[in-house]
Amino acid sequence: MEEFSAFRLERVDKVAHVIINRPEKINAMNAAFWQEIRDLFHWADQERSVRAVVLSGAGPHFSSGMDLSLLGETAGQLGRDVGLNSELLRSKILELQSSFNAVEQCRKPVLAAIQGYCLGGAVDLIAACDMRYATAEAQFALKEIDLGMVADLGSLQRLPHLIGEGMLRELAYTGRSFSGEEAFSMGLVNRVYTTAEQMMEDVFLLAQTIAAKSPLAIRGTKKMIGFMRDHQVAEGLDYIATWNAAMLQSTDLRTALAAQMSRQTPEFPD
Amino acid sequence: MEEFSAFRLERVDKVAHVIINRPEKINAMNAAFWQEIRDLFHWADQERSVRAVVLSGAGPHFSSGMDLSLLGETAGQLGRDVGLNSELLRSKILELQSSFNAVEQCRKPVLAAIQGYCLGGAVDLIAACDMRYATAEAQFALKEIDLGMVADLGSLQRLPHLIGEGMLRELAYTGRSFSGEEAFSMGLVNRVYTTAEQMMEDVFLLAQTIAAKSPLAIRGTKKMIGFMRDHQVAEGLDYIATWNAAMLQSTDLRTALAAQMSRQTPEFPD
Amino acid sequence: MEEFSAFRLERVDKVAHVIINRPEKINAMNAAFWQEIRDLFHWADQERSVRAVVLSGAGPHFSSGMDLSLLGETAGQLGRDVGLNSELLRSKILELQSSFNAVEQCRKPVLAAIQGYCLGGAVDLIAACDMRYATAEAQFALKEIDLGMVADLGSLQRLPHLIGEGMLRELAYTGRSFSGEEAFSMGLVNRVYTTAEQMMEDVFLLAQTIAAKSPLAIRGTKKMIGFMRDHQVAEGLDYIATWNAAMLQSTDLRTALAAQMSRQTPEFPD
Amino acid sequence: MEEFSAFRLERVDKVAHVIINRPEKINAMNAAFWQEIRDLFHWADQERSVRAVVLSGAGPHFSSGMDLSLLGETAGQLGRDVGLNSELLRSKILELQSSFNAVEQCRKPVLAAIQGYCLGGAVDLIAACDMRYATAEAQFALKEIDLGMVADLGSLQRLPHLIGEGMLRELAYTGRSFSGEEAFSMGLVNRVYTTAEQMMEDVFLLAQTIAAKSPLAIRGTKKMIGFMRDHQVAEGLDYIATWNAAMLQSTDLRTALAAQMSRQTPEFPD
Amino acid sequence: MEEFSAFRLERVDKVAHVIINRPEKINAMNAAFWQEIRDLFHWADQERSVRAVVLSGAGPHFSSGMDLSLLGETAGQLGRDVGLNSELLRSKILELQSSFNAVEQCRKPVLAAIQGYCLGGAVDLIAACDMRYATAEAQFALKEIDLGMVADLGSLQRLPHLIGEGMLRELAYTGRSFSGEEAFSMGLVNRVYTTAEQMMEDVFLLAQTIAAKSPLAIRGTKKMIGFMRDHQVAEGLDYIATWNAAMLQSTDLRTALAAQMSRQTPEFPD
Amino acid sequence: MEEFSAFRLERVDKVAHVIINRPEKINAMNAAFWQEIRDLFHWADQERSVRAVVLSGAGPHFSSGMDLSLLGETAGQLGRDVGLNSELLRSKILELQSSFNAVEQCRKPVLAAIQGYCLGGAVDLIAACDMRYATAEAQFALKEIDLGMVADLGSLQRLPHLIGEGMLRELAYTGRSFSGEEAFSMGLVNRVYTTAEQMMEDVFLLAQTIAAKSPLAIRGTKKMIGFMRDHQVAEGLDYIATWNAAMLQSTDLRTALAAQMSRQTPEFPD
Repeated sequence: MEEFSAFRLERVDKVAHVIINRPEKINAMNAAFWQEIRDLFHWADQERSVRAVVLSGAGPHFSSGMDLSLLGETAGQLGRDVGLNSELLRSKILELQSSFNAVEQCRKPVLAAIQGYCLGGAVDLIAACDMRYATAEAQFALKEIDLGMVADLGSLQRLPHLIGEGMLRELAYTGRSFSGEEAFSMGLVNRVYTTAEQMMEDVFLLAQTIAAKSPLAIRGTKKMIGFMRDHQVAEGLDYIATWNAAMLQSTDLRTALAAQMSRQTPEFPD
Repeated sequence: MEEFSAFRLERVDKVAHVIINRPEKINAMNAAFWQEIRDLFHWADQERSVRAVVLSGAGPHFSSGMDLSLLGETAGQLGRDVGLNSELLRSKILELQSSFNAVEQCRKPVLAAIQGYCLGGAVDLIAACDMRYATAEAQFALKEIDLGMVADLGSLQRLPHLIGEGMLRELAYTGRSFSGEEAFSMGLVNRVYTTAEQMMEDVFLLAQTIAAKSPLAIRGTKKMIGFMRDHQVAEGLDYIATWNAAMLQSTDLRTALAAQMSRQTPEFPD
Repeated sequence: MEEFSAFRLERVDKVAHVIINRPEKINAMNAAFWQEIRDLFHWADQERSVRAVVLSGAGPHFSSGMDLSLLGETAGQLGRDVGLNSELLRSKILELQSSFNAVEQCRKPVLAAIQGYCLGGAVDLIAACDMRYATAEAQFALKEIDLGMVADLGSLQRLPHLIGEGMLRELAYTGRSFSGEEAFSMGLVNRVYTTAEQMMEDVFLLAQTIAAKSPLAIRGTKKMIGFMRDHQVAEGLDYIATWNAAMLQSTDLRTALAAQMSRQTPEFPD
Repeated sequence: MEEFSAFRLERVDKVAHVIINRPEKINAMNAAFWQEIRDLFHWADQERSVRAVVLSGAGPHFSSGMDLSLLGETAGQLGRDVGLNSELLRSKILELQSSFNAVEQCRKPVLAAIQGYCLGGAVDLIAACDMRYATAEAQFALKEIDLGMVADLGSLQRLPHLIGEGMLRELAYTGRSFSGEEAFSMGLVNRVYTTAEQMMEDVFLLAQTIAAKSPLAIRGTKKMIGFMRDHQVAEGLDYIATWNAAMLQSTDLRTALAAQMSRQTPEFPD
Repeated sequence: MEEFSAFRLERVDKVAHVIINRPEKINAMNAAFWQEIRDLFHWADQERSVRAVVLSGAGPHFSSGMDLSLLGETAGQLGRDVGLNSELLRSKILELQSSFNAVEQCRKPVLAAIQGYCLGGAVDLIAACDMRYATAEAQFALKEIDLGMVADLGSLQRLPHLIGEGMLRELAYTGRSFSGEEAFSMGLVNRVYTTAEQMMEDVFLLAQTIAAKSPLAIRGTKKMIGFMRDHQVAEGLDYIATWNAAMLQSTDLRTALAAQMSRQTPEFPD
Repeated sequence: MEEFSAFRLERVDKVAHVIINRPEKINAMNAAFWQEIRDLFHWADQERSVRAVVLSGAGPHFSSGMDLSLLGETAGQLGRDVGLNSELLRSKILELQSSFNAVEQCRKPVLAAIQGYCLGGAVDLIAACDMRYATAEAQFALKEIDLGMVADLGSLQRLPHLIGEGMLRELAYTGRSFSGEEAFSMGLVNRVYTTAEQMMEDVFLLAQTIAAKSPLAIRGTKKMIGFMRDHQVAEGLDYIATWNAAMLQSTDLRTALAAQMSRQTPEFPD
């Protein structure tokens, strides 16, 4: 992989650690960020030796969201024809969305570890991850309303599947802050920690646990849960039956069964 | 606006306060109620100076639900042909439902403030609001099962998006009461209060906060969250991109950005 | 009803008690289990005198899930043509799924009472029930990942409607155990109990309460909640209007109203 | 019914004849048109003695579509804020659409009889009718493309259910004219006639035939076909079963059966 | 297979010929018919040596549809409670529908060969077949409207996928007859023939052609086309990719490729 | 644009002519084909001066479909684990599909001009185009069934929107050839021609006509028709209203109106 300007990439065994790395800018999302995150998660998707991904922010904060200079740049590209402007803006938004879609479509589970600020676009980002873990004093907010705009990068689309719709409306209409503790009580994060160190340790433990499972089964499980968000139960049952018709003939299954019988830890190829 | 017999309407700056006003009948929903609520929320939807709505009940209770005399009246209109009766009943139900749909489709956020009884049809009503706040000792119940009927005014349709399906089934099958406290723990209400006064104060504070935001952005945010309840994530992403293609060219956005830069409070036109 | 080898059936007034009855095998799901559960719930669906069903496990555990010998049997039926194997496996999975679909489609509410182990296929089973109640020390786990496979009997399909998607992913990727207490806090079970005796007593009380309601209204309510899981709110409103167009002409409604007026307990025919 | 300025209404037994009546303007759709068509079809929907509707144009043409002066008027209402303009335009379009939705949602079948020009908005209109009949030399065209805009009043939405998608694209991209003859060969109209007189005679014959059937059954059939356009086959089967559960208890059914047995013509009440 | 009273079953190599066999009653659909057709198509679905099915009527007619005596029987079971009657009727309709669903869900292609009358329920039946062939003088009609009822056995649900919606409405509202010739021109039947003999010969030729193809590929193709009727294009592309992931590893594929290379006719196992 | 090995690209004013250029191999689809077609249509999508695309085959045939050597190559990559093979095959199929999706998603209309053979994968390809035109003696066939496989590149998914489902099943089950004439009568192609020269002349005339319209309006029209294939009518009406809210403020609209008033031909910028 080439060099990154907005990220740092580390490998811990079979876990990739993707770190937003602009701490001096509170990890704000600049032009490089949007391109690199797509490349990074395409790579994690394709690289067989990566089995789980941890996403975090360098320094005391996760991310303050969109870098406002980016908005200014786009504004500068607008001309006098409202129609052409609309077409341009629409394609820009779709392009930004596709960066976070790359996180969601990465076939390996992605665990977000959040401390400090997690604002605006950063909430859109963690909503595209599989699971979220935070420090108790982390600060979240759906800030878009304070920019006079409707959030368009995924939080309004994905959060209804994670938190109650009544609370989502309050947060989206008011833009108010909420802590990691409150995020936990509304189901946004799976667990809260006193310190960032404890959080990172526990998140890596979880990621390692996942990395030790059958990669084929993990990828299939992620696919199915994603599929269910958008389909009826009967459709989901038919789809998994079609999927498993092939996968139950896989070697991983026999490896797992043999290990279970002999009470040993199975080893799965990448 | 003309006079109301089942409601009272108050204005507090840009917040409309809609009060069910038949305290001597525990705010039961009579014929006037069903017509007037539709008119009131159509008005709130169209009136530009209204930016948020608070809905509450006069007296110690929110509402005891459907006025049973209405059922009797409808029964009196039934004839001998089961087919014609069915057509009549079907259109009556659709008409009642449309009164609560008017609450949901009002483009301004609606905050329900609930104390005392909130029974039967009243639960259908608050399910059509954006957010719900209650006193700890408020009493909720899905009473329809005790009338020997299936609830048909929206609670079974909208509650699965607000509370866990397992708990919804228990409440709908048994018709048992539950407190504001329990309503909070299952995600039906966003917050509970010791007294009705504290509740009203806090709810108005929230409504005022919302009323100070860009009205265009608030209306768009409500539209998007409503859209997501019925669509796939990918459809929602495409829809907001199309929506924002025009809205990002709006003046409100520039007003908000300028205010943010100068650290002042922005003023948005109605 | 004929004799069962994997189940025991008891009747308590209008409540059917279906007991998984292979305690010496931790109630593992063998070939007889899959056939009998379908027959039992078809019977409960059709038998007018049954108005609610309680499902539990004999002995200290609810169930350890799939009997692994069954998997071995299926493996033995596979030949050399991957295509024919796939078709065979697909139809086997659909057949097993249909056993749990029979639980879900039984028109009478099904209450699962869970103590001890509730592992793998047992989680798929309780996800197809209407409501779940557990002892605090019950142990749940989505074990399929440890067999190197994607769960295909309904848990990944039905759980997103019961628990937060973020927590579901953690449980499905790691296969870790969680207690009845944690199951309650994530919304999987409606209530937890210190002892199995307390649980059984309370669950039967609930079942009796449900059995005393109008059977027509209970069946309709179950139908509507199931319908909503797969449809838009507007579709659900139209459907219930069509349904109630006939049902509001039923005698049960008049019985219930009369009882309410005279403050007596109504008696509904089976 | 009050007076109309853009329409003329005639009654022929149980058939309502709705005539666009601005022949001097080639029946162009002005402001009055859009309001009155909604009122007319709401009336036809509610008036029990109306069992079928014929829609035609006064003079040699059906309609030349939108009156361009209306577009000018709307343009005049636009201000300087693109966002507010968008909201205004969006609600204007939805309002115009709702006029044609009223045609579609009228519970009585609507038969369009088309001669001469049927251009732009007129194609949107006939697409909302149940059935279309035309003279061989009638001239159709999707003219919106020549106004530099995307058709937004229903033709692109409803025509895919009436004509092949390949031909629809050609017509929509080129805006070319096509004759009644070609409209028949692509399935847009059910039959073509040499003269307008023959057409009107035959269309009224069809309308009378429909008016003699059970009104309850006709309304139900229209509802089902409309339902199917937007739902899966399995959903449609369940819906009609729920619908007919009440309707098969209707008197019309017994009237029809008795008539069939005695080989007489049944008489159905309005 | 046991004996049939409403059908006759013949085998011609790998083609099953299912013949409605009550010519003295114009092949009207009596109680035995509804049970036996389900059994027959379940058998054809499971019996590996059957690769295609031809469905026809004994004597000069295909079928006159529902046996009216059946309606009378059901009417006799109705009691005084409209609600219970509705539940009974709903389940009766679903049961009848499931007989035709068995035709549709049979994994082997079903070719209907139609001469003479094909009325009411018979149109519902052929709509559940894969393909339809008719004599030019065959007579079709959607007769339900003349019974004062909405068709509820599948024609309104399945025909929109076969014929233009405009023509379907005319046929459903008027109940008028139409010939094999007209059925062909509207796309209901694939081909018309001068005599029934020519038709049977050609239909068997087609069935034999199909029976000589890879059975796995035929079953998969039927599954995919059925799937597409109810899903979006993108969903269909994902589903076939998942399906073929296993099936492209099948032996049939290699057999077909080898035959193609050597220009020989491939032989596929049942 | 770089050089192509499987294609030739020509420009005729604002129309791009994409020519499959392997006439010595009957334009079979080899590895280069699949990559280049994606690049070509991405380019046509982005290049503002291209307003319509004509797709044809060099030499006497359009294309014989998939190059079988490609299948062999993929087979060579398969290993011993059925599960891993399935994952590999699934991703290969999705990749091939994405090449044809690029044709469909190109925002400029694509007109296919077909002579000679159009077999297997070539039918999948033309199904992804906007419109199809053919010589009377062209030969089409869905050949996949003769390879012992289910077609997986789009024909089964897209053809139901173009031709009757009954005829599609016959063609897919038998793999039989059909002429341009028959393709026209079933709605697959919009027009047939005696010679390829006449066809090319007429197709370019159509393409030029389209290229002279407002590009913004053409792109929007294509988007809407594509949207409708996968959505309900009500969703489509809402979507176009949102789309046009911005687009009706475009300059193209004013240009078109001004031209219409002055009866001149409008000139739209790219």
